[in-house]
Amino acid sequence: MSQQNSSTIVVTLPDGSERHVPRGTTVEEVAYRIGEGLGRDTVAGIVDHELVAAAEPITEDATVEIVTESSDEYLDVLRHSAAHIFAQALQRLHPEAKLAIGPYTDEGFYYDIYGVDLNGDDLAEIQAEAEEIIEADYDIERVELDREDAFEYYDDNQFKREILEQEAAGEDPVTFYRQGEFQDLCKGPHVSSTGKIGGFELLDISAAYWRGDEENESLTRVYGTAFESESELEDYLELRREAEKRDHRKLARELDLFSIPAHSPGCVHYHPNGMAIRRELEAYIREKNEDLGYDEVRTPELNKAKLWQKSGHYENFRENGEMFAWEQDDTEYGLKPMNCANHSHIYDTSMRSYRDLPIRFSEFGNVFRNEQSGELSGLLRVRGLTQDDGHAYVRPDQIQSEILNILQAIEDIYSHFGLEVLYKLETRGENAIGGEALWEQATDALRDALHEKNLDFDIESGEAAFYGPKIGINARDALGREWTIGTVQVDFNIPRRLDLTYVGEDNKEHYPVMIHRALLGSFERFMGVIIEHFDGKFPTWLAPEQIRVLPISDDNLDYAREVASELDEYRVEIEDRSWTIGKKIQTAHEDRVPYMIIVGDDEEGSNTISVRDRKEREANDIERDAFRNHLEREVTQKHLEPTFLAGQ
Amino acid sequence: MSQQNSSTIVVTLPDGSERHVPRGTTVEEVAYRIGEGLGRDTVAGIVDHELVAAAEPITEDATVEIVTESSDEYLDVLRHSAAHIFAQALQRLHPEAKLAIGPYTDEGFYYDIYGVDLNGDDLAEIQAEAEEIIEADYDIERVELDREDAFEYYDDNQFKREILEQEAAGEDPVTFYRQGEFQDLCKGPHVSSTGKIGGFELLDISAAYWRGDEENESLTRVYGTAFESESELEDYLELRREAEKRDHRKLARELDLFSIPAHSPGCVHYHPNGMAIRRELEAYIREKNEDLGYDEVRTPELNKAKLWQKSGHYENFRENGEMFAWEQDDTEYGLKPMNCANHSHIYDTSMRSYRDLPIRFSEFGNVFRNEQSGELSGLLRVRGLTQDDGHAYVRPDQIQSEILNILQAIEDIYSHFGLEVLYKLETRGENAIGGEALWEQATDALRDALHEKNLDFDIESGEAAFYGPKIGINARDALGREWTIGTVQVDFNIPRRLDLTYVGEDNKEHYPVMIHRALLGSFERFMGVIIEHFDGKFPTWLAPEQIRVLPISDDNLDYAREVASELDEYRVEIEDRSWTIGKKIQTAHEDRVPYMIIVGDDEEGSNTISVRDRKEREANDIERDAFRNHLEREVTQKHLEPTFLAGQ
Repeated sequence: MSQQNSSTIVVTLPDGSERHVPRGTTVEEVAYRIGEGLGRDTVAGIVDHELVAAAEPITEDATVEIVTESSDEYLDVLRHSAAHIFAQALQRLHPEAKLAIGPYTDEGFYYDIYGVDLNGDDLAEIQAEAEEIIEADYDIERVELDREDAFEYYDDNQFKREILEQEAAGEDPVTFYRQGEFQDLCKGPHVSSTGKIGGFELLDISAAYWRGDEENESLTRVYGTAFESESELEDYLELRREAEKRDHRKLARELDLFSIPAHSPGCVHYHPNGMAIRRELEAYIREKNEDLGYDEVRTPELNKAKLWQKSGHYENFRENGEMFAWEQDDTEYGLKPMNCANHSHIYDTSMRSYRDLPIRFSEFGNVFRNEQSGELSGLLRVRGLTQDDGHAYVRPDQIQSEILNILQAIEDIYSHFGLEVLYKLETRGENAIGGEALWEQATDALRDALHEKNLDFDIESGEAAFYGPKIGINARDALGREWTIGTVQVDFNIPRRLDLTYVGEDNKEHYPVMIHRALLGSFERFMGVIIEHFDGKFPTWLAPEQIRVLPISDDNLDYAREVASELDEYRVEIEDRSWTIGKKIQTAHEDRVPYMIIVGDDEEGSNTISVRDRKEREANDIERDAFRNHLEREVTQKHLEPTFLAGQ
Repeated sequence: MSQQNSSTIVVTLPDGSERHVPRGTTVEEVAYRIGEGLGRDTVAGIVDHELVAAAEPITEDATVEIVTESSDEYLDVLRHSAAHIFAQALQRLHPEAKLAIGPYTDEGFYYDIYGVDLNGDDLAEIQAEAEEIIEADYDIERVELDREDAFEYYDDNQFKREILEQEAAGEDPVTFYRQGEFQDLCKGPHVSSTGKIGGFELLDISAAYWRGDEENESLTRVYGTAFESESELEDYLELRREAEKRDHRKLARELDLFSIPAHSPGCVHYHPNGMAIRRELEAYIREKNEDLGYDEVRTPELNKAKLWQKSGHYENFRENGEMFAWEQDDTEYGLKPMNCANHSHIYDTSMRSYRDLPIRFSEFGNVFRNEQSGELSGLLRVRGLTQDDGHAYVRPDQIQSEILNILQAIEDIYSHFGLEVLYKLETRGENAIGGEALWEQATDALRDALHEKNLDFDIESGEAAFYGPKIGINARDALGREWTIGTVQVDFNIPRRLDLTYVGEDNKEHYPVMIHRALLGSFERFMGVIIEHFDGKFPTWLAPEQIRVLPISDDNLDYAREVASELDEYRVEIEDRSWTIGKKIQTAHEDRVPYMIIVGDDEEGSNTISVRDRKEREANDIERDAFRNHLEREVTQKHLEPTFLAGQ
């Protein structure tokens, strides 16, 4: 059956229904075939997971989704148009500026430009001009130019000419989008007119390189964002301000948590306060790993590079320059980018039987990735990280229960941080190794587990790692932001590549299935997320300093020490600086200490304490035992907030 | 005062007394000046810490110690002579063999030879020949040859000629030692006759390179040992056989503790059993670090190499090729060989006051040393290791109490392993950085602390690390062998090099004193030592598997599970293979499990257990609670042996 040559093609709609349409039918025409109303509302389409213009002809069998103003993807379309509005305003004020590329992003858009030097004042002027363009509500039209005319139009713009030669090679005519006096080489899609933008804001300027390559021209990147309404923009800007206040790099300095000095870019120095948090996380994850039946192992950071040639990491990391690797004494060494190959070595040191499976290894594995220095960002993008990694080697009949147990553990863990869990199913990408049948089997296993637990999940096509499909675990934080942290991956490939086997009940050798998983992801990234999520106000069980004892005067220091010594299984400090009690309290609040114990002559006389918490609640005449007993409960049960004074 | 030109020099004797003697007086003549008897007994001398012949003239002021047959050093002299006896026997049987060098060692001697291929049978023949030479009791004489004659004598031996040209450059005449028909270029000292050797044994053959350089000729190294008496030799050989049985690499395979595969030479993969031991050690050391007031930190393995240029590690590690370091993306990176520079960075991130000191950072620091692959040996000589490192930054007035606390902790810790602690004071070496006055001050601080605690210690001149003097902590194991593991070092240098300061009570900036310490040394080496020390029979608190429950028949499996589940805070396994109880017990013994719980119908009926321990003691009718209560005590108190059945 040669569909390629047939005059009709099959489009598959989101509900799974199929329609036969003539080859070359546009997205909009498909919409009209479904219904007149949908046809009229069509803004764009998603064809085989790619956002395209409504006027885009469909030339092969494909999945098709119609994008209207009520679709999630509409915001992407609108932001793409906002990038053009920025460009139009820029060209009015700075006609010498040359446009490079201007895509939408998760947070808004940017446009890379050349030949003009902009500062904050320039941005304000461009913002004002853009607002006038929105006000004018120009129609945004898709137009076609002859290839020759397009080249002539971009006579003095080498970037657009390069796009014509590469991305748009062979197209004639080529597509432009036009609004008022402005037009831009673009495949779309776009909203129908500039007035559709409700809120528009230019945010930032940074440096970039053409094609992201340091050898190329240096460009100016202007960031902006846009929303359907002014109020959505205001909400976003408020969130952004709040996020800046909570920036984990800023809090790290204020709370003395960690540093990433110039001598070790992307590699974290944990100071005592940051390490206290990390140790609590480690202890918690160890407990969960034990519950899940994992045996802890430890494998070296340094290996010969040949280790990863067999596992397939070499071609995926080393050859992209993402691995730290070098030649020394005639040997190529590397720092491990993942722990799988080493765990698989341990698996391989013994003969394994079907009775032994699942065999589960966990490791707080120190791995290294040679991220570009420009990409590094505090704890969120690092070069040296410790994954709370784990690999389960299971029989095929054990896959689903294994995954279900892991998903349950993740839900439990995240709930103790007040993080909402979101799931994504990531499927086969371009760099995948192993056959399609294995990938499908593995993808089905993950999908079945998600269905079994009645979990909602998004599908992200082509996003998986090279060795198998994965469930990406996202956490939604207190500001509503989503972070990718944990992961569960099914892998039928590596056991074959490394020839790992077990002896089955049939006395023959079989390949186990390998399940890769990380509960928190990495300690670095997870800590970056929760520092911002909690705004540094960690739950008592995590707080680097859990209690500070404040003597009202120096005369009460001995009693303060006595009170503190009863709490020495906790992280307790005594404020022994000769300050006023007001200043002592204020400082403890600034340091975000969950509990202050205040002791003066009254407390000393009655052998009690006054307790104040981070939420400024306070109570006097507290029995020392009562507080200690509560604290044990609060810490063991991992309360999210100080709860001793919850009734106050 | 120009002593060089004076005709007398001063020799300082071990008791500190001084004698003025003519320049050029020999060691033996000094002994005769002290006493006729000592003169007659003189075998050799120790001049400025170097073992020399009795006939050696002393040409400068020096410390002098006379070596007689009752000195510790006599064994070194005797083994040096044993090397000559081997050489003589070899030349009789294999005249074509060319001799290179034959020094004494801690364990005996070796001789590197060229041009002959030896196997075990050859060694037996040479051994028999050597025994005849000993029997013949040839006098060993110091003789002098004209330089020209020496060259002629070694006409066809390029190694000895090279020694004449280098080590013996300019000497004329040169010294030989002669016994019977044999003579060898040698500075001595030697015993008076071959018959002085009571026990002589050739042990092993391995490969070596001339001057230890792979570019040079490949040599055969024959190892042997010698003692004053046959019985001492027998004791040594017995110890050696016992040590081979306990070899930690062999036990690691039998007990599935760790592996060091070809893809990561010198870098350890801890299997679950080995990791269980390591985690217990880590938890114990963390407890001790907390008691000592250390705050745990964590610093990255990967840094830019420039970090160590300032600290002085670069010239001491990188330039010797001992650091893993490489150029990537125009940056020189390295793996940290020590943690000091990183901890000092953390110290330096805040302003420190005299009130804050001591500031103490501990880290289980992963460090890397590029040891030659031929030098690697299981866990005892590795490339990747984790030190239980710590640095205290103290005021000068805090040095001694700080050191005393560390020494006390080390004594406590080692006693829980049944290891005897021995101390060595290591002083300034050739690669030292920093002025002599600082070194003296630091050395005095260590010596004072050792005296204060009334500890015996040896002084090892010139053995310290480059940045400060140290107390080397040796542990004597169950076989009487000594191992260097922990360390305490005082360092006045690095704070100056890195410009670390604190604000004193005088409001001025001062340099803190840095105390480097490791309690166990590294987890790798310490584990290597205790695996052999315990012969794999770890105390219950350390044992990877603490309890194994053995059902007498499969019918008792449920009861076995019930018993095991009550003990789930311990590392407990159930033997569920359908074997005879005899085989189950035997296997548990082979696996060195401290406790077996045996349950059959009787135990199930009476709701009790039978307990058997690794020492083959057994008791029936045990209440489950009674065993559990004991176990908690045994583990918490870290008993060295299973003690529940100690009365049986």
